[in-house]
Parts: sequence; structure tokens; C-alpha cells
Amino acid sequence: MSPPFSFRVLHTDGAARRGEMITAHGVVQTPAFMPVGTRGAVKGVTPRDLREVGAEIILGNTYHLWLRPGDGLIARLGGLHRFTGWDGPMLTDSGGFQAFSLGEKRVITEDGIRFRSHLDGSEHLLTPEGATEIQARLGPDIAMVLDECLAQPASAVEVRASTERSARWARRCRDRFLQLAETESVTVLSGDGDSRLDSETAESRIPNPESRLLVTNPGQAQFGIIQGGTVPELRTLSVERTLAIGFEAYAIGGLSVGEPADTMYSVVAHTAPQLPADRPRYLMGVGTPLDIVEAVSRGVDLFDCVMPTRNARNGQLFTSEGRLTIKNARYADDERPLDPACSCYTCRTHSRAYLRHLFVSGEIGAAVLNTIHNLRFYLDTMARVRQAIVFGTLETLRLSLQAIFSRPSSDS
Amino acid sequence: MSPPFSFRVLHTDGAARRGEMITAHGVVQTPAFMPVGTRGAVKGVTPRDLREVGAEIILGNTYHLWLRPGDGLIARLGGLHRFTGWDGPMLTDSGGFQAFSLGEKRVITEDGIRFRSHLDGSEHLLTPEGATEIQARLGPDIAMVLDECLAQPASAVEVRASTERSARWARRCRDRFLQLAETESVTVLSGDGDSRLDSETAESRIPNPESRLLVTNPGQAQFGIIQGGTVPELRTLSVERTLAIGFEAYAIGGLSVGEPADTMYSVVAHTAPQLPADRPRYLMGVGTPLDIVEAVSRGVDLFDCVMPTRNARNGQLFTSEGRLTIKNARYADDERPLDPACSCYTCRTHSRAYLRHLFVSGEIGAAVLNTIHNLRFYLDTMARVRQAIVFGTLETLRLSLQAIFSRPSSDS
Repeated sequence: MSPPFSFRVLHTDGAARRGEMITAHGVVQTPAFMPVGTRGAVKGVTPRDLREVGAEIILGNTYHLWLRPGDGLIARLGGLHRFTGWDGPMLTDSGGFQAFSLGEKRVITEDGIRFRSHLDGSEHLLTPEGATEIQARLGPDIAMVLDECLAQPASAVEVRASTERSARWARRCRDRFLQLAETESVTVLSGDGDSRLDSETAESRIPNPESRLLVTNPGQAQFGIIQGGTVPELRTLSVERTLAIGFEAYAIGGLSVGEPADTMYSVVAHTAPQLPADRPRYLMGVGTPLDIVEAVSRGVDLFDCVMPTRNARNGQLFTSEGRLTIKNARYADDERPLDPACSCYTCRTHSRAYLRHLFVSGEIGAAVLNTIHNLRFYLDTMARVRQAIVFGTLETLRLSLQAIFSRPSSDS
Repeated sequence: MSPPFSFRVLHTDGAARRGEMITAHGVVQTPAFMPVGTRGAVKGVTPRDLREVGAEIILGNTYHLWLRPGDGLIARLGGLHRFTGWDGPMLTDSGGFQAFSLGEKRVITEDGIRFRSHLDGSEHLLTPEGATEIQARLGPDIAMVLDECLAQPASAVEVRASTERSARWARRCRDRFLQLAETESVTVLSGDGDSRLDSETAESRIPNPESRLLVTNPGQAQFGIIQGGTVPELRTLSVERTLAIGFEAYAIGGLSVGEPADTMYSVVAHTAPQLPADRPRYLMGVGTPLDIVEAVSRGVDLFDCVMPTRNARNGQLFTSEGRLTIKNARYADDERPLDPACSCYTCRTHSRAYLRHLFVSGEIGAAVLNTIHNLRFYLDTMARVRQAIVFGTLETLRLSLQAIFSRPSSDS
């Protein structure tokens, strides 16, 4: 069966697109921001909170879920949606980025990424085929190909070699994805089915299709990833190679890894227009509210970033007046909500003084309430972005966010 | 003005009473359990969650709130209800228990409890008058008198001396409470009003009543506390002394401090019937679901305990089938809710397998979801207790809880 994945552009404003992405678990209005649920939970909030702040799609990390609790266990329990209680659209990354950044003693070869788990030191090999199978078991609506994450700085020669390898890995991911799609249905499990237990080679995985739960979400789509560092020709090369393989849609990877914002914007401006206009474009791991609007104005539709949730836990809040550090003494007796322009539960219910007290006291509630607010700020910003595209006023919104977030935080 | 505090018994079943307690911030159906919000927040849940699990009244800790963020600050921000966002009935303890158990270098004299803060080592003196004033500033609907917490084991002579002292302190608390009540309204603040800053003597507190925000909740009631350890004659003596002073209602203190359950039940059985039938009776710091039902059957109406919330954070769940330790490996692929008989958000949304995964992974969500469940279990139990009293079936319920919670946990 062909995946029930589709995308259509409803409005444009310059290069920016207001669209609608249809997945096996529902519709996503784009441009969209995906809160990050690393281990199958967006830290500090429940699925109900996510709905209330306006999330339409969330992201899970394949690396973490593969190592614990295991893709086999999640498959046996019906897949990631059922396991986590989030019944809306979901995307998982390939696991490559974390295998590269968290795994120990990692070695990258043509086969894949060999590393030791940060949890228990156990050795694993993440191959393109394996990453595809793990995601088939996890069952997100959108799976990502395994690409190579290149250590920076890298020479143009190194970037080229890595880009070529990523293209070869993308081909292997797609081949396995199409092969799995042909099974067309969920195979009932008789063995353990947990790839943690015998993940040495991709080939060892499906000796007997009847014994494995292979595909928990038959409507899964697969996105390719454009690499090429900050070298325009290599980005173009990567686009050509990746489009030649053909995916449901395409992401721009390898950015937001420490390069200057202007460099990132340039790469996006160079790359996005080369991607099919009738498919969503996903800029991985980006970013600040300003970064997001800058990328939208260059034609990007999907974003994910830990910033709103991680900053919330660290007491760094986003508001319509700029950043706010809640532990600052000036908020000790401040009766105002975090953001008078915000209608989230936190802002409707609690004062800055109370939130400061919870944060300073190390209360769990600080993380919960701050996360609800920061996610709402991000998702409200996306709603404003979508509206601005419809009304042709995205540039005004961009300038306004630039003014707010370019200056120092409001409490510094 | 006389406080808008009242209580009436609607039904009885033996010594057990089904009642209704009316406070300045609403009605509480009794027997009732009060979740503990130590620092102005019940750890892991929002005021909205508290409403949803069925909480009607919560408890705050005077010691913690006095030291941080300070009673003066909370008063300036309108009192504890406005500060915390919980607009229902609220009770605070006197601060004595924590000053005794958490304070460093504590010395108890006739004046009060001198100690150093566990936060910063600063020296404080908590007097009966001071504890009353701090609670007047905090503004709960029910304030408690300062009583002496006696270190165990103690001789009968020591217990008698302590009981007599607690009675003298109770008199001083009541005198100051009535004096404050005569101010009859909120005095607008001109100074800092924070008793942390000059709390050495009670007398230094109100040199100029106009300069202090004294009473944030004019409808506040004050409960006396019966002491007397495990010596029946001293309990009777304490009842006589405390009733002679006269309070809106009475608590039984000094229990749940390590004595055997049967001893506690005996003291309750001895003490509760001596308290006025037309006032609620509050057993402080108790306890397990079984302890609560045992005490209800001996005439107690109100309870508080950190057990449901603290155990939740430690992965110890209460269910209709007994205790459950969520980290146990047997739950790794258990698709059932924590408690099939429970209708809380956690049980409606998540499996034991997912909750185990969150707990083992150290996710914040484990504390949040487990707390929602444990509180709902306690509050559902109270609803069943109230219903059983109406139907005259409390003994059946008691036997059923005894059977469930006397045996080892279901997963051990």
C-alpha cells in the first residue's frame, strides 16, 4: 500500500508556505514546530498538556527508545502511539545523531555506526537497514533515514566524502523501507523481536518474517536528509542524490551544530528552493523563534528543537517581550503572569513570584509549568507565522521577532 | 467577626461520621484527606490536577513557607490562595514539627523553638504568637496552634511536662489569634512585613499595626491540638486543657511518629470521643489507607499525609489490588493500567509498561503521572469511606482494605 502521506500548499508569502501535511495519525498545519519527546515523553508534560498547548506533531528519539525500553518491546505493545499515549502524528529521527554524540567508542564505517551504549556500555551497530527496521517497529508516522553526522570542523574533501556516504546510506534505508512496506501488514510476533538482542547485522534481522513484528504503522512515510555542510555545491549534490532516490519528503540536516546563524540561513536559502515544492521541508534541530521565522521565510515547513523544553527546565522563559530568567530576584514579588499576552495554563493561573519560588525551591512544578508556557509560546508563534503567511505579513512578523529576540534578555 | 467556619454531621455509622465542613474558601466533604503542598505546591501536580483527582482541601507547611519565600511576601501578594493558584480550602500546620525535625541546633524553651534554618543557617525563634501571626499572614482557612513535638522515647514525666507546655502555648496562640481577629480586616502594608527579618520576639512584631499586613484571610479558623503521647490520662488532661481554651475544632497530634499501628488506634479510640461531637476531628500526619479507615471508624474526620505523593515519586503505587512497585521487571511489558479499577488520567492513558519505562529512565513524567494516580486512589478511598458511612457498611470496607494492605505488595 502507498502511505497515506500527503502535503499541499494552501498559501504562499514570498518563499514561505502555509500548508497542510496529512499523516497516518492526522493532519498537521504547517509551518509546524514539533516538541521533542526524547524517551517517548516530552519532559514535564502529559499528552493532554501537549494537546492543550497546541502541539499537532511530536518527535521521538530512535537512539534512546531503541536502547530503552527497546523497539521490540514497543512493537509488542502496539507501537509508539499506543505506548506513549500520544495518538497524533509522530516523527522519529534515525538515531544516528545520538549514536554519534552520546555513544561511546564510536566507529563509523561503510556498514554503519558502531558504538557502545551510554547506558550500559553494550556494543551496538546502527546500520541504515537497522535504523529503518527499528523505526518500522516503533511505528512513527514519519521515519528519517540514517545519515552521517560529520565532526566539525571538516575539510571540503571530508564533507564531500561524508555527503556521498550519506547518499549511499539513504539508498539502503529506502530499499529496506520499500521492502518492509511490501509486507503490507503487521506480522504477529512469536519471538522476542527486540533488535537490542541481536543487532549485529541487518541481515540477521528477518530470517523468518513470521517470527518478527516488523511494521507497526503501515502508513509510515520516510524522509530523506540533505547533507553537504556549508558548501553550496555539496548541498546541491546531496539534493540531486537524495531526490534521485525519492522519498515522501526531505529534510535539511547538518545545521544548528554551532555555525553562525547567517551561515545557517544561507544554506537554507540555497537548499530549500531545490527541494520539491509539493513536499514539506524539514529543518532538523532548529531553533530559536527567530531562526524558525527566518527559515520559514526561506521555504521551510517543519521544525524541531529541545530549546523550549530544556530552557523551561532551566528557568529560561520565552515571552512576547523577550527572554526571561525566572530566578532573577526582580521577580520575587512580581504578581504578573510570565507573559501577559499568553493564554496558557501557567499564565492564566500563576504569577512570576510563584514560579520563581517554585524554581528556587527546586520543585517539580517549576519544570511542569515552565514547559507548558514555553511550548505554548513556540506553538503560538507558529500559529502567528501561519496566519502571517495567509495575510502576506510574514516580513512584519519577522522584524518584530528580530527586535524582541536580538536584544539582551529583558531581565539582564 | 466570627469566622465563617462550621461543621455538621450528616450521617453516622458507629463512631464514624459523614460530615460537611464549611470554610472561608468552600465546603469540604468529610471524612477528607488533605494532599500535602509543602512549599505551596503539591509536588508534581497543578491546582487543576488536584481538582481533577478530587481534592477539596490541601495543606501547606508554615515552616517552609515562612523561611522561603516568606510570610510577608505571600501576604503582600494576597495570601496563600492567590499565591499558589489553589482557590479551595487550605490548612497550614504551625511550623513546629519541621522546626523540630529540620531546624538545626534547636532549643525549646517556654518562649518557643529556637533553631537555625536548614536553608541558610540563619537563627529563628518560633513562638506561639509568631506561629499564629505567620499563619495570619499566609491566610489559610485553617491555622494550627504551635505545640511541642517531644523526642521519643520520653518518660511519662517528660510527656506530662510537654503536654502542659503545649497547653500553655495553645493559650498564647488563641490569645494572639483573637487579638488579630479584632483587627477585622486587612491592614495595608507600608513596611516590608516579613517576619523573617525581625522575628526575634513576638512582641517586636506589631509595634505599629498600621504598618503590617496582618490578616490576609479574615475567615480563618484555628484548631487546637491534643497531645499526651501514648498515656491515656495525659491525653485526657490535654483534651481538658485544650477544650477549656476553646477552638473552632481540634486535632490529635503526636501520633504517626513511629509507634505501632495498634497503639495509634488505641490513642485515637481513647481521645476522639472526648472531643466535641459538633466539631471536625483531625488526625495529623496519618497515614496509610488502612490507618485512615481505622481512624474514621474511631470518629476522625480529617487527615493529611505525604505518603501518596512521596511514594508516587519513589515509584510506589497504591491500587485496589494492593501496593505496586513500578520499577519491578514484571511490569516491563504489562499493557494494563496501574489499577484497572481507577479512572484517573494516568490509568485512562498509560500502561504499566510505559510508566515503568518513564520511572526507570528518570523522566519527570513518572513523578507527575504516579502522583496523579496515588492521589486519586486516596481521594477515591475517601469517597468510598463517605459512602460506606451513609450506607452503614464501613466495617465491610475496613475489612476489605485490611485484606488488601495487610498482605505483602502484589509484586513482591
